[in-house]
Amino acid sequence: MTIDFRSDTVTKPTPAMLEAMMRAPVGDDVYGEDPSVNRLEALSAELFGMEAALFCPSGTMTNQIAIKVHTVPGDEVICDFNAHIYQYEGGGIAFNAGASVRLLHGDRGRFTSIQVAEGINADDVHKARTSLVCLENTTNRGGGACYELKDVEDIRALCDRQGIALHLDGARLFNALVAKGQSAKDYGRLFHTISICLSKSLGAPVGSLLLGPKDFIRKARRVRKVFGGGMRQAGFIAAAGIYALENNIDRLSEDHDRAAQIASALDGLSYVERVLPVETNIIIFEVKAPLTAAALVEQMKGAGILAYAIEPLKVRLVLHLDITPEMVTRTIDVLSGLNPAS
Amino acid sequence: MTIDFRSDTVTKPTPAMLEAMMRAPVGDDVYGEDPSVNRLEALSAELFGMEAALFCPSGTMTNQIAIKVHTVPGDEVICDFNAHIYQYEGGGIAFNAGASVRLLHGDRGRFTSIQVAEGINADDVHKARTSLVCLENTTNRGGGACYELKDVEDIRALCDRQGIALHLDGARLFNALVAKGQSAKDYGRLFHTISICLSKSLGAPVGSLLLGPKDFIRKARRVRKVFGGGMRQAGFIAAAGIYALENNIDRLSEDHDRAAQIASALDGLSYVERVLPVETNIIIFEVKAPLTAAALVEQMKGAGILAYAIEPLKVRLVLHLDITPEMVTRTIDVLSGLNPAS
Amino acid sequence: MTIDFRSDTVTKPTPAMLEAMMRAPVGDDVYGEDPSVNRLEALSAELFGMEAALFCPSGTMTNQIAIKVHTVPGDEVICDFNAHIYQYEGGGIAFNAGASVRLLHGDRGRFTSIQVAEGINADDVHKARTSLVCLENTTNRGGGACYELKDVEDIRALCDRQGIALHLDGARLFNALVAKGQSAKDYGRLFHTISICLSKSLGAPVGSLLLGPKDFIRKARRVRKVFGGGMRQAGFIAAAGIYALENNIDRLSEDHDRAAQIASALDGLSYVERVLPVETNIIIFEVKAPLTAAALVEQMKGAGILAYAIEPLKVRLVLHLDITPEMVTRTIDVLSGLNPAS
Amino acid sequence: MTIDFRSDTVTKPTPAMLEAMMRAPVGDDVYGEDPSVNRLEALSAELFGMEAALFCPSGTMTNQIAIKVHTVPGDEVICDFNAHIYQYEGGGIAFNAGASVRLLHGDRGRFTSIQVAEGINADDVHKARTSLVCLENTTNRGGGACYELKDVEDIRALCDRQGIALHLDGARLFNALVAKGQSAKDYGRLFHTISICLSKSLGAPVGSLLLGPKDFIRKARRVRKVFGGGMRQAGFIAAAGIYALENNIDRLSEDHDRAAQIASALDGLSYVERVLPVETNIIIFEVKAPLTAAALVEQMKGAGILAYAIEPLKVRLVLHLDITPEMVTRTIDVLSGLNPAS
Repeated sequence: MTIDFRSDTVTKPTPAMLEAMMRAPVGDDVYGEDPSVNRLEALSAELFGMEAALFCPSGTMTNQIAIKVHTVPGDEVICDFNAHIYQYEGGGIAFNAGASVRLLHGDRGRFTSIQVAEGINADDVHKARTSLVCLENTTNRGGGACYELKDVEDIRALCDRQGIALHLDGARLFNALVAKGQSAKDYGRLFHTISICLSKSLGAPVGSLLLGPKDFIRKARRVRKVFGGGMRQAGFIAAAGIYALENNIDRLSEDHDRAAQIASALDGLSYVERVLPVETNIIIFEVKAPLTAAALVEQMKGAGILAYAIEPLKVRLVLHLDITPEMVTRTIDVLSGLNPAS
Repeated sequence: MTIDFRSDTVTKPTPAMLEAMMRAPVGDDVYGEDPSVNRLEALSAELFGMEAALFCPSGTMTNQIAIKVHTVPGDEVICDFNAHIYQYEGGGIAFNAGASVRLLHGDRGRFTSIQVAEGINADDVHKARTSLVCLENTTNRGGGACYELKDVEDIRALCDRQGIALHLDGARLFNALVAKGQSAKDYGRLFHTISICLSKSLGAPVGSLLLGPKDFIRKARRVRKVFGGGMRQAGFIAAAGIYALENNIDRLSEDHDRAAQIASALDGLSYVERVLPVETNIIIFEVKAPLTAAALVEQMKGAGILAYAIEPLKVRLVLHLDITPEMVTRTIDVLSGLNPAS
Repeated sequence: MTIDFRSDTVTKPTPAMLEAMMRAPVGDDVYGEDPSVNRLEALSAELFGMEAALFCPSGTMTNQIAIKVHTVPGDEVICDFNAHIYQYEGGGIAFNAGASVRLLHGDRGRFTSIQVAEGINADDVHKARTSLVCLENTTNRGGGACYELKDVEDIRALCDRQGIALHLDGARLFNALVAKGQSAKDYGRLFHTISICLSKSLGAPVGSLLLGPKDFIRKARRVRKVFGGGMRQAGFIAAAGIYALENNIDRLSEDHDRAAQIASALDGLSYVERVLPVETNIIIFEVKAPLTAAALVEQMKGAGILAYAIEPLKVRLVLHLDITPEMVTRTIDVLSGLNPAS
Repeated sequence: MTIDFRSDTVTKPTPAMLEAMMRAPVGDDVYGEDPSVNRLEALSAELFGMEAALFCPSGTMTNQIAIKVHTVPGDEVICDFNAHIYQYEGGGIAFNAGASVRLLHGDRGRFTSIQVAEGINADDVHKARTSLVCLENTTNRGGGACYELKDVEDIRALCDRQGIALHLDGARLFNALVAKGQSAKDYGRLFHTISICLSKSLGAPVGSLLLGPKDFIRKARRVRKVFGGGMRQAGFIAAAGIYALENNIDRLSEDHDRAAQIASALDGLSYVERVLPVETNIIIFEVKAPLTAAALVEQMKGAGILAYAIEPLKVRLVLHLDITPEMVTRTIDVLSGLNPAS
């Protein structure tokens, strides 16, 4: 038995989700005629209290489209140094949008309105024009850390004063909602646009949604077309998304509990230097040098447990719906039994 | 009963295809672990005798990736004025690749090596650098016209002499293969890269493949990522593609026969000025002014038959696997009975 | 003695212009502190009745900045197939602006509002968004042909109805003003932005101006900076521009008369198939095959007369202020004496 | 009398330089026929022992062209957070090249090969492809700090191992050469391409040069054209550059001495928190809060001395050839006499 903690993207549809997919009514979505896609877009927009939504093949695409529509070449995007849009989207901010970045060095991926204020460029031909702030919640490289609503409100207030747009990379937003007891509509109110993923914690096989004002989504649809993100009978995968939104949100607290359980076990181990605070479904821990993260991950793999070495000394584990309580127990047993001293 | 001739993209999976989809083994394709995607990529590359393949959400994406990888900004792409890449991909040649176009005015979308030769820019800083020629076969706006292999060979020889790459937009290439008795391997030999669509005549719901040398596909994978075209458990839709490649190619001759049948019926009608030659599954006919294409399409719609007015006087019908012989008979009856004189 | 008809860009400053350059007050123009640049910008804006102007190193830069500011990537520019912006600016429309082109096939580079209307794309995600029309007056590859004001008014009215911007590549606009008895303010009224060149017929060594509304020029200044077009003590070359605007416009009629003289002489020559109508300072004539333009140009060079073979059978001569009446006489003598039959 | 320390870009040509300009032989540089431009390009290439050079209107253009030619969209450029190319070129790395940045946090703008090594991305589709490292020497925002040759050699060795190009923004390189006793040829050997400015310390009014291999400069010429940086009779300004290279390098040590003199005077003043080390012609000092840099600059302006507040507490003074010994004395008097306590 392999236990795969590499990412919450590795989940496979449950029989019930597969059943929903198989029975989905479909049509040509490029013509706007796929009933399942249309229903998923309406459902998600309503959940966040936003005007419209656009279904896309991935969260990278929803983020990249949002950045493209919010900016023109020569603009500058403020985000955290650890942001997915900067670290893991192939240099897309520059490639797709011709936009520069101003990188903040936040607390586990979260920054404050004060940091944003310092990052806004003066109106000067020598400087790129700051036009967009992108938040990530929960933060991936920050180990699933969540924002307080108050901090987001301060950032939005600053953006409003400066005429700057605010986008949320909410690939794992549902984990934050569950962990913090926040509501989707709070976020719909605080951000101009939001990207959410169906294929991470929610367990759908493929797809993300970009949420925003009608006029914005109309422009986004153009960019999706020019990227080649328009799909034909996409209802089969949209149906999995509908199922996920309707069934897989509340259960995220189970993932969080299991993450806490494993983190707690890690805390006492001889080869662990420290475990970062666990707020949601992601665990990041540091090994004691001269042990390396890569060496530990290799040993774990030998015992059937997959994880990522995200930095020379840091290992990341991600909980998700294919991880059962039995797997958690076994993982703790294995990790406790390892003796990876140099 | 609605009979939908708007495009061959409107087809819905047959029960057998749906069954194949739902039983597909899947994994995370961003990690290269989806067995169905891997099989589809291997299968298609082998069919064309090419080294590698990349599965993408759409034919627009496979074309745009190919153009992007073949060029750098400031290069120029030679294609027909009627090419899909110029007419229907949202200005992507310039948007995604920063490349200019040199538009040829071919015969129903097909051009010759002589036209290409005239379109190649001199080596001069004032001129964009010609680096890519894109063919389309069959031609969409050219009414499904097909190339002779000899003409393609001449173009390839010219490209070789000039150090220019040759890409094929093969969205409907399988129609050409069947109509002309050509082989996929002929095309694999003549083009540096090929884009084929699974969601047009082949009847799969979603997806296209980009075929080319290994090193090219490695670069293409980067561009797919930055566009956000990487999907997770994409095997569900890849499985439909496998089914289509294995089952739906030979039957395309039925579509061609039915197209010919309808075209022949149209030929004698009072309101039809002329019918363009029908070589595959597309019929384009011109109405007699002052009747307009839009007015005729509206009347046809009233009778349950959907088509497109692609120009003020031109109507397009596309045959596909959801069009039965009964539908063809009924269409001929309806069209013969119309009396759309002003 | 070499007589250089290759282009009106080859002129060298007269002693009086050089004197004006040498005595120019200068400052750091990147800080807006060069008095000569500021005076040139004010002078040219006033001449056309426009709000503001921006001094740039070349007409390619003023055109490219205008196109960039008027569009966003994914937009489409309508221009003539023979337009300088499409033919001779290195593919900049795509490279710099990510914009597509819709190429009209006008009469010697001039198109009508009807052609523009046919070239505007429908509002459809498949199509690039038409946002800019660019005229060229006089037309370079059209042999110096000029627009009638009425035709420009029709195009502007169409643009207004469609919300499309209208830019003028006025590299040789002063020739048109003189030839047609039109006024600069007519053009200032009819175009959103205008590019004029100082280094062509006007005889300054370097520089062009982009004219437009204040807000547009503010954005243009940003693009000039990012291209690296901001210069420091640019007043030396701006002073030549001031001199040119104040002294070298009216004399253009002399160039036109001389062009007409040469054209008339060419008309009767045995090796000349036909001479295109001469409206300003450019002569284009066709040689009789099997003689080629390149062969004739080579022979002329042997006699000290430089010209361009712009097409296999077409030769271009451009008049300018370094061409004296004596040179015209000698040119006619030489051309009449040639016997370039195969 | 105004004493202008804002930048070394504000200098005006001396009578001898002006004389050289006005007597310059000129021609059409777009055709490669301007003898003064050709001589300047040959002279500068030879000075650095490089194959070829390209004359451009500004250092921003030479840097941006270099970045563009070294990269393709989706690549990543490693530079210091304080680099001119990142801070003051209008977001051009993304705008012009579609390239991402990896920002190092060096010592006064200088970084080490170890920092570069940490900044190189793994070969992974999620990450931009690291293809270029850009150094700046002297560093502008680092207060004119200079690199040791050994540190540059380490960086070049790393770049060679990784197949990464190395570009030098040498806007003030001549100050480094003089201060460190290094030679131009050392730099020609260590960098793939170099940008040098004529309009900063060297005192020419306009212009920069991009140096590199022949094939690179050929590509650079294309990009210069598409930016609109090709100028016609540019020899007038090139001649000033020739004069500057032949006459104004050795005298830079005077600027350095004068900078040291002023820095030394600043060091003891009541309102000065600290003076950064002065290595060349730039002085950066920090004022004691609650005094702000802006307030002090305002007071200095009242006394006829211009400087920049480059950060809330930091003031920058730049020495150059229009600053005489008398001005230095007066500046020290004025600064010593100020009493800007809140």
